[in-house]
Amino acid sequence: QIDSARLWGSIHETAQFGATAKGGVRRLTLSSEDKQVRDWFRKACEDAGLEVHTDALGSQFGLRKGRDMSKPPVGIGSHLDTQPTGGKYDGILGTLGALEVIRTLNDAGIETEAPICVVNWTNEEGSRFAPAMMASAAYVGDFTTDDILSRKDIDGTTVGQALDSIGYRGDKPVGFQKLGCFVELHIEQGPILEAEGKTIGIVDSGQGVLWYDGKISGFESHAGSTPMPLRRDALATLSEIVLAMEAIARKHGPKAVGTIGEAVIANPSRNVIPGEIAFTMDCRSADGAIMDALDRDLRAAIAEIAARRKVEVKIDLVWRKPPTHFDSKLVAAVENAAKTLGYSSRRITSGAGHDACNLNTVMPAAMVFVPCKDGISHNELEDATQPDCAAGTNVLMHTVLAIAGV
Amino acid sequence: QIDSARLWGSIHETAQFGATAKGGVRRLTLSSEDKQVRDWFRKACEDAGLEVHTDALGSQFGLRKGRDMSKPPVGIGSHLDTQPTGGKYDGILGTLGALEVIRTLNDAGIETEAPICVVNWTNEEGSRFAPAMMASAAYVGDFTTDDILSRKDIDGTTVGQALDSIGYRGDKPVGFQKLGCFVELHIEQGPILEAEGKTIGIVDSGQGVLWYDGKISGFESHAGSTPMPLRRDALATLSEIVLAMEAIARKHGPKAVGTIGEAVIANPSRNVIPGEIAFTMDCRSADGAIMDALDRDLRAAIAEIAARRKVEVKIDLVWRKPPTHFDSKLVAAVENAAKTLGYSSRRITSGAGHDACNLNTVMPAAMVFVPCKDGISHNELEDATQPDCAAGTNVLMHTVLAIAGV
Ligand SMILES: NC(=O)NCCC(=O)O
Ligand SMILES: NC(=O)NCCC(=O)O
Repeated sequence: QIDSARLWGSIHETAQFGATAKGGVRRLTLSSEDKQVRDWFRKACEDAGLEVHTDALGSQFGLRKGRDMSKPPVGIGSHLDTQPTGGKYDGILGTLGALEVIRTLNDAGIETEAPICVVNWTNEEGSRFAPAMMASAAYVGDFTTDDILSRKDIDGTTVGQALDSIGYRGDKPVGFQKLGCFVELHIEQGPILEAEGKTIGIVDSGQGVLWYDGKISGFESHAGSTPMPLRRDALATLSEIVLAMEAIARKHGPKAVGTIGEAVIANPSRNVIPGEIAFTMDCRSADGAIMDALDRDLRAAIAEIAARRKVEVKIDLVWRKPPTHFDSKLVAAVENAAKTLGYSSRRITSGAGHDACNLNTVMPAAMVFVPCKDGISHNELEDATQPDCAAGTNVLMHTVLAIAGV
Repeated sequence: QIDSARLWGSIHETAQFGATAKGGVRRLTLSSEDKQVRDWFRKACEDAGLEVHTDALGSQFGLRKGRDMSKPPVGIGSHLDTQPTGGKYDGILGTLGALEVIRTLNDAGIETEAPICVVNWTNEEGSRFAPAMMASAAYVGDFTTDDILSRKDIDGTTVGQALDSIGYRGDKPVGFQKLGCFVELHIEQGPILEAEGKTIGIVDSGQGVLWYDGKISGFESHAGSTPMPLRRDALATLSEIVLAMEAIARKHGPKAVGTIGEAVIANPSRNVIPGEIAFTMDCRSADGAIMDALDRDLRAAIAEIAARRKVEVKIDLVWRKPPTHFDSKLVAAVENAAKTLGYSSRRITSGAGHDACNLNTVMPAAMVFVPCKDGISHNELEDATQPDCAAGTNVLMHTVLAIAGV
């Protein structure tokens, strides 16, 4: 059994780095708050006897030796960055839970056959730089390191510049740390476990993701003197797209979601009809065929709206992550650990993307979910209970012991 | 006849202050570009022999003496500020046209009975600070000077601070310069004159304006893991409001327009359902009963949308300007001048608000319109011809001569 109070203390201690007035955390990737939590995490890993290295994209790897160093390490961990209006658990539970596993093994004097590697992946959230799960995507070869280093945030700062500004461009090449498998603990970020009164979610699959950049070019004109029929209003166009996206996701529901989270009017003014809007779109489904249908329906709807309103709408698919089917043996190992420990559980699909989804494309990967209050995540009110967080960490530890060998 | 080439030269010389790449002007009120054009204008007025004073809200008054100084001056002019994506004529033609009238009278050695006062009103556009036609509204007593001085732009800068930062908080109290009447020359900013091949618009009325500040409070949550039916999406709510506004304006059309020109998502992120949006609304009609109906319909539609989507929407009416009916004698004087000069003309309603609409509430006021290309305004592509600008300035001069007396 892990030390529930120590885990809880770590979560709340690090929540100070970027704490918001509403009780959440604002810790955008590679920000000064992210540097603070990285420094804390490195020291905590070193104090736990881990050998810590940082790769060229800033991901942190803390290695605990095993008896047989020829075996690839069992990877555990998650991320410490958050959304602009993020909570105290998303990513953090999985990273500090992994640290807690190491601390518990140390206290118990347990040596494993295979080494164990604790990981804090850079930019899982995808809020400051696209795509999400950026560093693990480069790790598995979906993108080159140079490509990722050149990605820009909204102010034009590149990933490379941001890494340098906080001193976290590591000296190890991406992929330097081989892993044999990866297990990630996370809050569910959805309402199912809580609603069904289950403590552990055995994650067997994950939704695929489509991310688009969009741009609407209408025509700026006077709000008072331009007759309604002559307008080419970019905001009215966006409004139709938002509602079309909602209708399309509902049509394919409950196995699909669609969201427009960002929209910026260029040169806004109260008495000017909006002429230009940049926006982004996020669509998901766990079913590849539905993803294709979402893409098709969305493009058709947008083309119709643009033609009817005589505005130009450009859509650019910037990221396509196929649905994930986690490794069946590793999923069974998680299920077995939950049963052995006596926790109620169920199989579950992840609505969110996770670094484990990327790693699963090149090695066995699996995930452990615990409930979160009202299914709320990406919100400062995100909440989870101490017993549930401890239960998930125990399942993580016992899964690791089963794989790594004692 | 005024000097068409000199007028054209002044318009294009001052267009350098805030010139944009697309051939427009970005000269927000009380910005450094506004200071440049104000300095230019003061010097030009002084060179034309006017006595120039600035009031506490930065409006510039250039007085030309008349034979009978006991008579109140005839006011002419407009404004030199522009929209973020503004053109070279909106306001500028009326202000530099007024200067051209003075220069022409000087050249011809014409003395008038009543004095003439050229005015550049501060913040006609209402883009940086609300309301529009701000300084003329204070002049006629709709707002106190202190109230206006405390209005803030989006960065929190007050009108008072902005005036000080460019050195244009004048030493004269608002209202120091009495005027007997006011005549404003302006581009139409709409398509009617051009479509009908008329050179001069005799403006007999103007639309009333309703300005609202709005705030939507939904709930931020995860774009991937929040099922569609559980969302309280602020952007989807805004989208319905935008389309409701459009439908309501069309329902009361062609005598109504409605626009949402500004909308800002708080803490936007690609994979977060928008939780909070601030926005503004602009509705207009020349018919007071339709204005009331717009307000009623809009509030009802918003209440229904908010209740159905379980989000909070707050609406605050920040400005209500009733429809304008210009002084019939002064309108007739404009019409007479146009006829005498042989220009084709028609009576017309102004879609935009103008300082003359404010002044009309306390003194006789009227306006002269000239065509603009494709009715485009509040756009960098705004355009007008040199002959039309000259024609409008001639009508302005002959109207002034008729009222002031030679
Ligand atoms: N777990 C999580 O919230 N990931 C963020 C990436 C995404 O799913 O949008
Ligand atoms: N003339 C003009 O464009 N005025 C701006 C104020 C408004 O009508 O919105």
